[in-house]
Amino acid sequence: MRKIASLIALATTLVSAPTFAAPAPAVGGDALSIVTDLTTEVGQRLAGSPREAVARDWAVARLTALGFAKVHIEPFTIPGWERGAETASITAPVPQKLAVTALGYSGATAAEGVTADLVYFPTIEALKAAPDGSLAGKIAFIDHAMKAAQDGGGYGPFGAARRQGPTIAARKGAVAVLIRSIGTDHSRIPHTGVTSWAKDVKPIAAGAVSSPDADLIARLAGRGAALRVALTMTPRFTGEAPSGNVVADLPGRDPKLPPILVGCHLDSWDLATGAIDDGAGCAIITAAALQAAKDGQLARTIRVLWAGTEETGGFGGQAYAAAHANEPHALVLESDTGADRVFRVTFQMAAADKPLAERITADLARFGVYAGDGKPEGGEDVGFIAAKQKTAVIDLNQDMTRYFDWHHTPDDTLDKIDPAQLQQNVDVWAAVLRIVANVSRPIAPAS
Amino acid sequence: MRKIASLIALATTLVSAPTFAAPAPAVGGDALSIVTDLTTEVGQRLAGSPREAVARDWAVARLTALGFAKVHIEPFTIPGWERGAETASITAPVPQKLAVTALGYSGATAAEGVTADLVYFPTIEALKAAPDGSLAGKIAFIDHAMKAAQDGGGYGPFGAARRQGPTIAARKGAVAVLIRSIGTDHSRIPHTGVTSWAKDVKPIAAGAVSSPDADLIARLAGRGAALRVALTMTPRFTGEAPSGNVVADLPGRDPKLPPILVGCHLDSWDLATGAIDDGAGCAIITAAALQAAKDGQLARTIRVLWAGTEETGGFGGQAYAAAHANEPHALVLESDTGADRVFRVTFQMAAADKPLAERITADLARFGVYAGDGKPEGGEDVGFIAAKQKTAVIDLNQDMTRYFDWHHTPDDTLDKIDPAQLQQNVDVWAAVLRIVANVSRPIAPAS
Repeated sequence: MRKIASLIALATTLVSAPTFAAPAPAVGGDALSIVTDLTTEVGQRLAGSPREAVARDWAVARLTALGFAKVHIEPFTIPGWERGAETASITAPVPQKLAVTALGYSGATAAEGVTADLVYFPTIEALKAAPDGSLAGKIAFIDHAMKAAQDGGGYGPFGAARRQGPTIAARKGAVAVLIRSIGTDHSRIPHTGVTSWAKDVKPIAAGAVSSPDADLIARLAGRGAALRVALTMTPRFTGEAPSGNVVADLPGRDPKLPPILVGCHLDSWDLATGAIDDGAGCAIITAAALQAAKDGQLARTIRVLWAGTEETGGFGGQAYAAAHANEPHALVLESDTGADRVFRVTFQMAAADKPLAERITADLARFGVYAGDGKPEGGEDVGFIAAKQKTAVIDLNQDMTRYFDWHHTPDDTLDKIDPAQLQQNVDVWAAVLRIVANVSRPIAPAS
Repeated sequence: MRKIASLIALATTLVSAPTFAAPAPAVGGDALSIVTDLTTEVGQRLAGSPREAVARDWAVARLTALGFAKVHIEPFTIPGWERGAETASITAPVPQKLAVTALGYSGATAAEGVTADLVYFPTIEALKAAPDGSLAGKIAFIDHAMKAAQDGGGYGPFGAARRQGPTIAARKGAVAVLIRSIGTDHSRIPHTGVTSWAKDVKPIAAGAVSSPDADLIARLAGRGAALRVALTMTPRFTGEAPSGNVVADLPGRDPKLPPILVGCHLDSWDLATGAIDDGAGCAIITAAALQAAKDGQLARTIRVLWAGTEETGGFGGQAYAAAHANEPHALVLESDTGADRVFRVTFQMAAADKPLAERITADLARFGVYAGDGKPEGGEDVGFIAAKQKTAVIDLNQDMTRYFDWHHTPDDTLDKIDPAQLQQNVDVWAAVLRIVANVSRPIAPAS
């Protein structure tokens, strides 16, 4: 606890009033107000950027105004990265512009770009099968086939093209790699997202093209055309950069009971205002905590974690887990899958708590929510502490049918939020929090 | 007719083989093949640009391969214009990037851009009411409320913000003008489209922001915030530029009967490949003419006009009307509203031809098409000749519910075409052409 106290002291010196100059609206504690104001008054808040720092200050002010206690920032640092120029065109067999964006932690081309033959791979498996050295001097293109699914199920397998594809292509000698966006839309808007470089690999330029551009590449490749592509991509690594978690408590009646931890992430990609990823999540958990307590103080404290730097590698969740490793947590929940309705609940709980899970399931039926078989582990924000402490986890599965249309794109804006679905989300969350935060007996570790 | 003959002779010298290097697919006469190949092998074809010239050559080769006769180019020139850099951000009260694109024939800012206060107008009427000189040194923003309609009905009234707004703002002293995109989508993709400058007005920078960006501007303005915007937009007027119409005949049995003229336009905006605007239209009219004649030669010639330079002012349609003013035309039809299904037919015909209209209506019922009350005049491609000659007009109204989501944007790509709806369109067109091209008695002028 010393550690936290010292972090709080440090954070206090960093917090200043938001600089937003417009007349302040009445501070709304409902989810739509929170995500509206965050996206309007702060906007993009890339991990490690000055705007993420502004967002932390904004969060402290808002959580304080909403009556949370012990509102503070827990700073940490991350490897900084920022986007540069990004343009791409097919130059042969026919000139066609490509809508492209760099993946997070992409390397750079020369400032004047690179023009090279493009080698088409229908899947990441086909790329893996390419002979060593066969991509020397070339640009690899990885196609794949992610389709919309209610539980977002294709993101794991097809996202491998983004996460591992660049390393595989670099090892085979590629000068750059392009992938079909990991997304489910049909707009000329490419999807960013972080890539992971193996330690032995020097980052090359790695970008995503939009789905219609990938269709065009596939059509030309399918006709046997030799494709050449001109690519300029000049992101840069900026060294150690400041980030931080915002942590606040809605105090329970019994301070000796371990808290319920609810998490979201405050950082967004730089391309948009992060309304669904993850402004909505922070809005949902916060509004739900307030709603759960509005008819009277709860037995347990609900701790809200607005994590920093989720997008580029879960640094915020790891920092929270490290800082709070020795404090017990009763249960964790996370909201980081958009703003659409909750359709299912899953539990990772000890056998002794099966009656509690059944009680929650019974209560959620009125919202059209049913229990699924999954064994949730929490996401990047609360999953690290849960793994460390084997904390019980409840996952409120949101409908992700539309989520990957806009995920990690310039299209992650407020208009994508359906207020009715957002409110259903808050109502479900509040119902769960009202139950679990009033459990006075111990909630067991999950195993 | 001398004029046409000399144009044909001139055109012959301009036509060269397409430079597309991929192995040629079998030449398809179905609509999907035509629009697929045009968008894949040519891509964007801005009026007056080298790519529009490539498209003309491509069209001549394709129409010739499909068996059309007298395939030729009728050249003309237009005032050239091309896009430059285009970036915009809100700088106060909060830094936020705006997705922006220049309107056709927009003027330019200085190369380093301009930063100025933004004045918000909810409608073009509000802009008109602003006092003279009140916009000196400022950027005007015009919001409006176009919503999707099956017949595209809002485009006329709300499009005024784009067509007349910039002139009005310039007259009141504005240094630049931004409008909410004339469109019905919710993506971060702005819509271009031509603006019309009054003769006494020096063009200023005139652009459109995407719908979510316009929402953000409206939210900030609604909170009373003073907005400042940094805008860089460097398009340029390129002087007299070459364009041309591609004209071809599917010869009828009786060369003395005036032809049925079917029109589309070959040029596209530069932001995309022009799949729905108007590659689809050219594909539909061409495939339908072939389909109408596949069971035997028709009595009348069907003339296809793939007009150049529709987007920046209907120059192609005007050039056709001037060149062919003294040739009689029996009837005109145009396809320039996307690729979705035909839902309604309207007629501008003499009373004497009411039985013909009724016969067509009766035949189209099997496609779910009904007769409406409108009095069509043809569009920019065939409307000028129809107005000059009072030619009869049939309009096959396509479902435009989705059309303005993608119209004039980078999203006008092949994936937006639903093959089943495209085929219904061709089937309806072919049914109409089979009837009207087999009318051997005169078809009367509309009056």
